[in-house]
Amino acid sequence: MLGRLNHVAIAVRDAEKAAKIYGAAFGAEISAPLPLPEHGVITVFAILPNTKIEFIQPLGETSPIAKFVERNADGGIHHVCYEVPDIVATRDILIAEGARVLGDGEPKIGAHGKPVLFFHPKDFSGALVEIEQS
Amino acid sequence: MLGRLNHVAIAVRDAEKAAKIYGAAFGAEISAPLPLPEHGVITVFAILPNTKIEFIQPLGETSPIAKFVERNADGGIHHVCYEVPDIVATRDILIAEGARVLGDGEPKIGAHGKPVLFFHPKDFSGALVEIEQS
Repeated sequence: MLGRLNHVAIAVRDAEKAAKIYGAAFGAEISAPLPLPEHGVITVFAILPNTKIEFIQPLGETSPIAKFVERNADGGIHHVCYEVPDIVATRDILIAEGARVLGDGEPKIGAHGKPVLFFHPKDFSGALVEIEQS
Repeated sequence: MLGRLNHVAIAVRDAEKAAKIYGAAFGAEISAPLPLPEHGVITVFAILPNTKIEFIQPLGETSPIAKFVERNADGGIHHVCYEVPDIVATRDILIAEGARVLGDGEPKIGAHGKPVLFFHPKDFSGALVEIEQS
């Protein structure tokens, strides 16, 4: 069962700078930058009425988004995150449908403190997909 | 004022095929393919509780997404669309903040029958941004 779109993640060199126009021009609420060393990112959120835009900036030398930001100097949409009520059941259905789970396939605690998994962009029309236990 | 995230648009060669896994694996409601010759696209929607994923497929030889789909053979996230209460006022604020509007800057009727404008990805961290009159 597909839940809410939890967020759209945009990877950039400077998350605070990237979020600025959402506050200045759109009047959106912008969160303070939050370093998450265990995930190798700094996050800043722009809050919309129905979802969030998450700006992620590489943190540390082994950041999982370092290469993406290198390849996309202006930044770019990095992934979309969908909430699901049962992450293990959804994982198994996605795999049965031919989608490739990244890593070892076991849910890890994500940047928002909930279990998450990522699926290969090639199986989702070029979009890296995160599923998060809702 | 920033309204709802109306949709995330994913451009692909085959919109119906791309949307399939959202129905099959996630149980999302999938709309029938809708050809929009005046916009040069075929659209298929996957409906989420809080927003929509819009799959767009090139239609005709002058489709505005033909090049994107050529460059991104597997597909890719093409744009995000935000609702705004006053599209002209928002346009003017965005321009004053340094964002570049695409085309002649006058709102056109978009694929959903409402006035829309697009802004340059370089001014939005690599994300092509559509604003739509709510």
